[in-house]
Amino acid sequence: MNYSNAFIPTLREVPSDAVIASHRLMFRAGLLRKLANGLFTYLPMGLRAYRKVEQIVREEMNATGALEIKPSVVVPAELWKESGRWDSMGESMLRVKNRLDNDFVVSPTAEEAFTATVRDELSSYRQLPLTLYQINTKFRDEIRPRYGVMRGREFTMKDAYSWHANDASLDETYQAMGQAYRRIFKRCGLSVIPVKADSGAMGGSGSEEFMVESDVGDNTLILCKKCDYAANVEKAACALDSNFRPSVEIAKGAAANTPPYEKIDTPNIKTIEELCAFLKTEPKSFIKTLIYRAENVEIDLSSAPGCEKFDRKNPTAFFAVAIRGDLDVNEVKLASILKASEVTLASDADVERLTGAPVGFAGPVGLTTLPLIIDSTVAGMDDAITGALAKDLHYKHVAWGRDFEAWMIEDIRTVKAGDICPVCGGELYTKMGNELGHIFKLGYKYTKSMNVTYLDENGKSQIPTMGCYGIGVDRTLASVIEEHHDEAGIIWPVSIAPYHVIIVPIKYDGEVKTAADKLADELSKNGIEVLLDDRNERPGVKFNDADLLGIPFRVVIGDKGLAASPAQVEIKRRSEKESRNVDLDKAAAELTEKIREELGKGLERG
Amino acid sequence: MNYSNAFIPTLREVPSDAVIASHRLMFRAGLLRKLANGLFTYLPMGLRAYRKVEQIVREEMNATGALEIKPSVVVPAELWKESGRWDSMGESMLRVKNRLDNDFVVSPTAEEAFTATVRDELSSYRQLPLTLYQINTKFRDEIRPRYGVMRGREFTMKDAYSWHANDASLDETYQAMGQAYRRIFKRCGLSVIPVKADSGAMGGSGSEEFMVESDVGDNTLILCKKCDYAANVEKAACALDSNFRPSVEIAKGAAANTPPYEKIDTPNIKTIEELCAFLKTEPKSFIKTLIYRAENVEIDLSSAPGCEKFDRKNPTAFFAVAIRGDLDVNEVKLASILKASEVTLASDADVERLTGAPVGFAGPVGLTTLPLIIDSTVAGMDDAITGALAKDLHYKHVAWGRDFEAWMIEDIRTVKAGDICPVCGGELYTKMGNELGHIFKLGYKYTKSMNVTYLDENGKSQIPTMGCYGIGVDRTLASVIEEHHDEAGIIWPVSIAPYHVIIVPIKYDGEVKTAADKLADELSKNGIEVLLDDRNERPGVKFNDADLLGIPFRVVIGDKGLAASPAQVEIKRRSEKESRNVDLDKAAAELTEKIREELGKGLERG
Repeated sequence: MNYSNAFIPTLREVPSDAVIASHRLMFRAGLLRKLANGLFTYLPMGLRAYRKVEQIVREEMNATGALEIKPSVVVPAELWKESGRWDSMGESMLRVKNRLDNDFVVSPTAEEAFTATVRDELSSYRQLPLTLYQINTKFRDEIRPRYGVMRGREFTMKDAYSWHANDASLDETYQAMGQAYRRIFKRCGLSVIPVKADSGAMGGSGSEEFMVESDVGDNTLILCKKCDYAANVEKAACALDSNFRPSVEIAKGAAANTPPYEKIDTPNIKTIEELCAFLKTEPKSFIKTLIYRAENVEIDLSSAPGCEKFDRKNPTAFFAVAIRGDLDVNEVKLASILKASEVTLASDADVERLTGAPVGFAGPVGLTTLPLIIDSTVAGMDDAITGALAKDLHYKHVAWGRDFEAWMIEDIRTVKAGDICPVCGGELYTKMGNELGHIFKLGYKYTKSMNVTYLDENGKSQIPTMGCYGIGVDRTLASVIEEHHDEAGIIWPVSIAPYHVIIVPIKYDGEVKTAADKLADELSKNGIEVLLDDRNERPGVKFNDADLLGIPFRVVIGDKGLAASPAQVEIKRRSEKESRNVDLDKAAAELTEKIREELGKGLERG
Repeated sequence: MNYSNAFIPTLREVPSDAVIASHRLMFRAGLLRKLANGLFTYLPMGLRAYRKVEQIVREEMNATGALEIKPSVVVPAELWKESGRWDSMGESMLRVKNRLDNDFVVSPTAEEAFTATVRDELSSYRQLPLTLYQINTKFRDEIRPRYGVMRGREFTMKDAYSWHANDASLDETYQAMGQAYRRIFKRCGLSVIPVKADSGAMGGSGSEEFMVESDVGDNTLILCKKCDYAANVEKAACALDSNFRPSVEIAKGAAANTPPYEKIDTPNIKTIEELCAFLKTEPKSFIKTLIYRAENVEIDLSSAPGCEKFDRKNPTAFFAVAIRGDLDVNEVKLASILKASEVTLASDADVERLTGAPVGFAGPVGLTTLPLIIDSTVAGMDDAITGALAKDLHYKHVAWGRDFEAWMIEDIRTVKAGDICPVCGGELYTKMGNELGHIFKLGYKYTKSMNVTYLDENGKSQIPTMGCYGIGVDRTLASVIEEHHDEAGIIWPVSIAPYHVIIVPIKYDGEVKTAADKLADELSKNGIEVLLDDRNERPGVKFNDADLLGIPFRVVIGDKGLAASPAQVEIKRRSEKESRNVDLDKAAAELTEKIREELGKGLERG
């Protein structure tokens, strides 16, 4: 392809909202333009790179045995009503009414469309397991789209869905997908951090996110300095404190020397900070007790205090949650423990009604109106300060096991930098990350609500279990640029590069033109993708553009080199500083070999 | 690929609305399923064929030098407001409001998105000509979607757009696209009829449609029995009648023996049929005069009677249109001649106001209030019956040139079967057809309204002219099936087939299995796509499915053949009745050669 025919509108200035490298470089190098906020056009150079990501994803999906299908992008609302997500998806889902006043959805994801398609065709266990995928347009109506295609409104997702007769089969596909994802990102030249993740609104549990580090990432990752432990902060765990008492009996023993708890007057003091100043102590000496309201709780509450009225029709319950005063409750973990669709802090009125005291004076001692859930840190506290369930009153010398017991002891703290790794005991630290891929075990959420069944070996009707597996194609592409660029521009990995080689004739004329054309031709015949800079520009301009575009190999051809004996050209890798002179007649073979070697990386199958 | 892993849910029964072969067979052979009316899911076998059509289109577009880009499917309404089509597109365009109450369009076509993208990058004549295309999702909210993907709501279109400094350059690209389209359809194994077409709501003129014959087609085609003349009835011409008089002088001479025109009383007679009965004559003896109302007329009306008040602010005009009594006015031709956005029959009130008589008595003699446009057939009539501009009154012995003159003489008749070919004088006949592709010269419609400019050689700002070129991918795929099937199923051309070869072991076991696996392996290594029927089904079931799926080559492997010396397999082309025995060890080579030969057809470039 000649440069002058390739429509590569490079820019010196980029839009002021382009604050991250990939966004800036996709605009500067002529890969992308904006149609509206969060809506973009891939220009030819951008689309070439995009298609390569897409193809790598497709090849790795096919290698797992997954089959590609293509549902429509616009789907009938009926399917979303069946699954219940028409109501639960919120405003980020783009809903459309057509001329006949029928409701449609511009797909943000496709559990429903895939499940509906499979439902009608699935009859026998012999058809399972089955994995289907698409690489197709999605739309999420982000309130604040930004960072270019990293968080656009319309994007392309590879989404795969699998159906299984049992958990073992689901786990097998889930593991295969995890391996495929690692291969995909490796082939794209990306360093990903696979982390345990909460599966959020998708439902189900058992999931892994594939993250890339990013200063503007949406996710806080908890990582270990010593081992490869990595988790989304929403799910991250840490080691138990050394003073954790696994039972009430042990705790009672540990509290043997603690004086009996006693009241302290704390007039007009509500916050832990005020208490610390008043009592001249530290937050970690306190047990903080918070009242939570939880919706659609699915765990058994028949033995829970205050939950006598809880049932399917009235699925709201309140909980007291106690945690060491210097720590925060992780509401995602809490919701997950309760199997609740949502947890929020109770209103002031509810707190007062349930604890008999205004906000700020809740405490575990004498609390009988609510189920008490304590964080494991509280199960190590034998001389703590707590609220006393009355205005302007606290207790001191409170000990777990001796002065109160818990309905549940769980890990509900938000892990933070400096905490101890639950796997190896190393120190944890945090990074910001962006999610590129996500694999989940969905379970029966969709197959149950949408009535999917098959007949098992005994002719009995069964409901299959399900997994789902997504990768953002655009985000993956942008992340490649985030990881591979410098001041001058993009540094494409060979696997994703829009072209493998850029030939830069010093002046596209005479013998130099002949040599450049011939080399381009030889390379093309070998299947190498060549961009030939045929423009009538100064060499400096061409070199700068070659650096900006990030083509992996640059070949400079000039009169001087051609006059040497044998004729020479200069080859430079975009990723390296130094160039080398190579015999003109060996250049095609050498480049072909190197590029094939790079393309072969990650293709070995074990 | 093993059949049992390929998810091919074949059906015996098809939905009752599947009335055409492609719709029936796409469902029966497990290529397609329905999500909602006009919305479908391509299953793995369907998608494989679909991708091949897509790839043929892509290769042929790239061969013309067109560059692929990818705008979003959902685009901001602002662009459509700029071009004016937000108002003119009507209800078939799917409009969406997002959570911020902004308007968007789910693209039915992409003149606006492409023009907006190019507008910001185009600066110099050196960048022209430029052709960009996409192969992407489109949505048209058909009131009555039917015939499967032949007329769905969501579909995939290849749409290309080109920009040019002058008409010669536009024509060059237009011609190249026409050639590319011929190659695309040939490679898909399709017989297309290229026809002159009206460019409809797209604007501009100079266009060609690529039609396939279809009993349920949307278009009436006019074809010549002798030559290759082909036109959409909306634009079709026919030869002038032998008695056509090219001038008033000649007409006057021809009318020398016609008696002077005279009144005839025709009480309570309005229709031509009633008049024929009353006067005992035939419709072709009459001049039928119709009053039309035209909107946004762009031709010069300064000399037109009754159009004194016509201007840009008041762009409605009325016309009298006279045609031989047995013929119909072609309103598309009429609109095209007037360069009007719309022509409709005038209301009864307008007719009465303008002609001084109720509907049924308009005529050309003495008509001074309206511009009179006569069809060329009227310019051959020297003894006709016409309305007399008064209730219950007609004239007879009316002669053009002698008794009235015309403001315009044009070809405005609707051509019909039996008319004479304008090219060779042969007889014309009609067929119903479906449009697969369409190429237009758009002109300045979008570049003017959307303010696209570039600087010419002299540094002067110019507006580029534009072309656009579409192909329906789904419709092309369905048309391949329409043209290539029989009672038993699909007969895929090798170029589009989901797999090239189906291997049918009589029983997938023992030596037969070994031979089948080995042959599949050899073929796959040669790049041949193989489906291996590993199912535990009776041979008859497998043969029927192979015929239904339409894989071009079937190889049957059984114990008997393997026991022969040398071992034999049976090869049958789906398109042929007879099978042949082939040595097992020569089968891979023979199949590979034949398939490569087929795939090479249409790839030669002149």
